[in-house]
Amino acid sequence: MAMDWEKKYCERASAMYGSMTRQLMHLIADPEVISFGGGLPAWDLFPVDSVKAITNAIFEGDGPAALQYGTSEGYLPLRQAVAERYREKGFAIGPENVLITSGAQQGIDLMSKLFIDKGDVVVVGDPTFLTALQSFSLFQAEYLSAPLDEEGMQVERLPEILEKHNVKFIYVMPNFQNPSGITLSLERRKRLMDMARQYRVPILEDDAYGELRYSGEALPALKAMDTENQVIYLGSFSKVLSPGIRVSALIAPEETMEKLVFAKQAADLHTDNLAQRIVCEFIERDLLDSHIRVIISCYRKRRDAMLKAMDRYLPKGVRWIKPDGGIFLWATLPRGLDSMALFEKAVKAKVAYVPGSCYYAKGGGEGDIRLNFTACDEEKIETGIRRLAEVIADSL
Amino acid sequence: MAMDWEKKYCERASAMYGSMTRQLMHLIADPEVISFGGGLPAWDLFPVDSVKAITNAIFEGDGPAALQYGTSEGYLPLRQAVAERYREKGFAIGPENVLITSGAQQGIDLMSKLFIDKGDVVVVGDPTFLTALQSFSLFQAEYLSAPLDEEGMQVERLPEILEKHNVKFIYVMPNFQNPSGITLSLERRKRLMDMARQYRVPILEDDAYGELRYSGEALPALKAMDTENQVIYLGSFSKVLSPGIRVSALIAPEETMEKLVFAKQAADLHTDNLAQRIVCEFIERDLLDSHIRVIISCYRKRRDAMLKAMDRYLPKGVRWIKPDGGIFLWATLPRGLDSMALFEKAVKAKVAYVPGSCYYAKGGGEGDIRLNFTACDEEKIETGIRRLAEVIADSL
Repeated sequence: MAMDWEKKYCERASAMYGSMTRQLMHLIADPEVISFGGGLPAWDLFPVDSVKAITNAIFEGDGPAALQYGTSEGYLPLRQAVAERYREKGFAIGPENVLITSGAQQGIDLMSKLFIDKGDVVVVGDPTFLTALQSFSLFQAEYLSAPLDEEGMQVERLPEILEKHNVKFIYVMPNFQNPSGITLSLERRKRLMDMARQYRVPILEDDAYGELRYSGEALPALKAMDTENQVIYLGSFSKVLSPGIRVSALIAPEETMEKLVFAKQAADLHTDNLAQRIVCEFIERDLLDSHIRVIISCYRKRRDAMLKAMDRYLPKGVRWIKPDGGIFLWATLPRGLDSMALFEKAVKAKVAYVPGSCYYAKGGGEGDIRLNFTACDEEKIETGIRRLAEVIADSL
Repeated sequence: MAMDWEKKYCERASAMYGSMTRQLMHLIADPEVISFGGGLPAWDLFPVDSVKAITNAIFEGDGPAALQYGTSEGYLPLRQAVAERYREKGFAIGPENVLITSGAQQGIDLMSKLFIDKGDVVVVGDPTFLTALQSFSLFQAEYLSAPLDEEGMQVERLPEILEKHNVKFIYVMPNFQNPSGITLSLERRKRLMDMARQYRVPILEDDAYGELRYSGEALPALKAMDTENQVIYLGSFSKVLSPGIRVSALIAPEETMEKLVFAKQAADLHTDNLAQRIVCEFIERDLLDSHIRVIISCYRKRRDAMLKAMDRYLPKGVRWIKPDGGIFLWATLPRGLDSMALFEKAVKAKVAYVPGSCYYAKGGGEGDIRLNFTACDEEKIETGIRRLAEVIADSL
């Protein structure tokens, strides 16, 4: 008799099914489709030669150590380098606050494991980073949400929630949020931190794109305003060095570290040692900041090319918010158009995006679309937006 | 007011505290201590030069791809190479059955996520691999166990359990089990698979050490006897290539793959791309089997040195089971001696082991010790066992 797997899976498994974006992305395997749907860094900017030289130096210097087991906390010189880097950004931390994770997604997974029982409340924005929602949902979180506007999450909606519920944490991406590209204003950052203090609620600050600013003034991270040690911060090297080698840093109050390290050990023992050493050496050789400048210079041009093409081609009634950084741009279709319904037409016209409803915890965003502006060059961006404009105009 | 983290943690967090072995291992930082406590591969055997050459070839061939995002399932050529390797061992599988994980520990974590609700029953051996227990416990599993003897898990104890409970899976390490070094006999493998079929229960087969056999005849994996697609198999490259780069393979029935891939995506998006390419190329260049022969030749000598020293030095009343492979050896102290109590004396005498009680799901093993025989050379092994013998003799 064949196995009855359904009888064996746990409750949590009901949330595990191929995600909408995975399915959509399979539709656009056609290389002629200009895809604004993904979130990939530009292929041509990876510092392959530097990483190769560094890797050779690692194997020549202490090869066996890179291939041997490491500690669950992470490679100490990297934890030190990370702590130093963030101290310069105003974080009151040391290496003892740094846990190296296998990408920021693992940081989200560890947070879910440590904080979320079935039915526990997590506060998110509307919209929110999809894969974070997937991780929280896997641990059976309940969502309460605050909508975003041009200044980011409407934090004035939070006290009502915080009064009534034992909110496990507020998940927020203050800089160039995925999917919206929106930045949380300074005023709202201050108010959010005031509320966090008043209601003694933890904040999970996801700063995947913070270093990629193309216009406007840099704002302090919530962690830099964290006088009561309430913020757990996710920094990532995916967008500024390489997402393929999966190295990020979770920065947390020391009193939470023992449990986080335990969860990390149970998750994968430790993060790839060779990758940790590559990132460490890339920072220590002082290559990171100059590489970030190269990325910023390229991505700024691409953002501007997309904004210009949108201005030029998109029909009246489409609205969008200019992002000051990051890799995404959020647009709203003219009233009555459904971005999910439009998707198939767009793919036929050889352009793709992600429908906005994918990013809503509890419904919404049917008229919105997420556009990535970093993976294609300026020419393709213009062509793609022109195609998109035609699809929208045809549907009006 | 300071954060009250305890109010925010979930129930699961009560299982997250520094593990006994982590604490014990901190005690033996003294380099003069000869430690049989760890589970590290030998430092001097890592194929640093080959891996360096391969890494250079990867960066020269397709560097950007190694640094870019990959798919959650894993690097397809590696999945193909793994499938081919295991087909030769009698597995009826293809690449569609292979999910690349960040070490076998992540495979255990994904299994916990997919199968274990609070209070669900997992069957384990007594003793069992500690970090697997930690992962199952984090998901609030209940354990039912069958003791091991010289032929491995006493599978004849299982029907009584399987009759009464909806067992989510049976966790078993058939070859050179961690911590005991014991191998499940062919007869018991057959009976276990018969029971799995009869009771339609999944089996999680952890084969971290299967390729490291020093004596006796190779036995078929449970997965090679899996006519009804019930076995989920964990293969690892940690012990035969490098644990530092964290690449393992989870081999599962196709119908379970969508959920496993979802869980993998939520855990860390995908495994380190550079590491996956290194392992793939190491297999494709036909370096793995010859490297395994080098490891076997070295570890066999070390095992034999430890057995010889034990014969020569250990006082009467100490019993042990000769392992046919792997990296651990299990010994039982003379009646009345407690291995946890003896540990401090041992460290003072500059030798260390892991007390057996660390490996019992629900108590037991107070008279047992786990000894690793692969991390030290023969001379150190002899010296270490002599010191251990003196400590035991002094305590009798």
